[in-house]
Amino acid sequence: MKVKVIVTLKNGVLDPQGKAIQQTLNGMSFSEVKEVRQGKYFDIEVSTTDEKKARTKVEEMCKKLLANLVIEDYKIL
Amino acid sequence: MKVKVIVTLKNGVLDPQGKAIQQTLNGMSFSEVKEVRQGKYFDIEVSTTDEKKARTKVEEMCKKLLANLVIEDYKIL
Repeated sequence: MKVKVIVTLKNGVLDPQGKAIQQTLNGMSFSEVKEVRQGKYFDIEVSTTDEKKARTKVEEMCKKLLANLVIEDYKIL
Repeated sequence: MKVKVIVTLKNGVLDPQGKAIQQTLNGMSFSEVKEVRQGKYFDIEVSTTDEKKARTKVEEMCKKLLANLVIEDYKIL
């Protein structure tokens, strides 16, 4: 089964990449854009068919590799 | 209001970054991981409060800047 994960910067952590996108959008006449924060998305195919087990495994992967918990949060969709 | 967007590579487009993550996970004793595909996530704050308008604007942003439609798909959450 597939498990989807979003990793985002914690609130308060500077996001220069998001800022650059926001400024570019503003310059492209999208003046209504107030803030952009960029994150990462992972689509993980695991061989387990048990949803609960799969989510537990993916949570472990997030903690160990996919997210830097000092500055990032993860969310399993 | 906030609009969330996920940009992913189209099926069939090679994803070496995802492959590297998969191999690393396999090497970390997560042998159940069959495939990883990485994408981008955007959290966009727009000044519009009308949801439909906001989504239409964000869709335009995806087409013009956030996604490369030749190799990527976008999904507005």
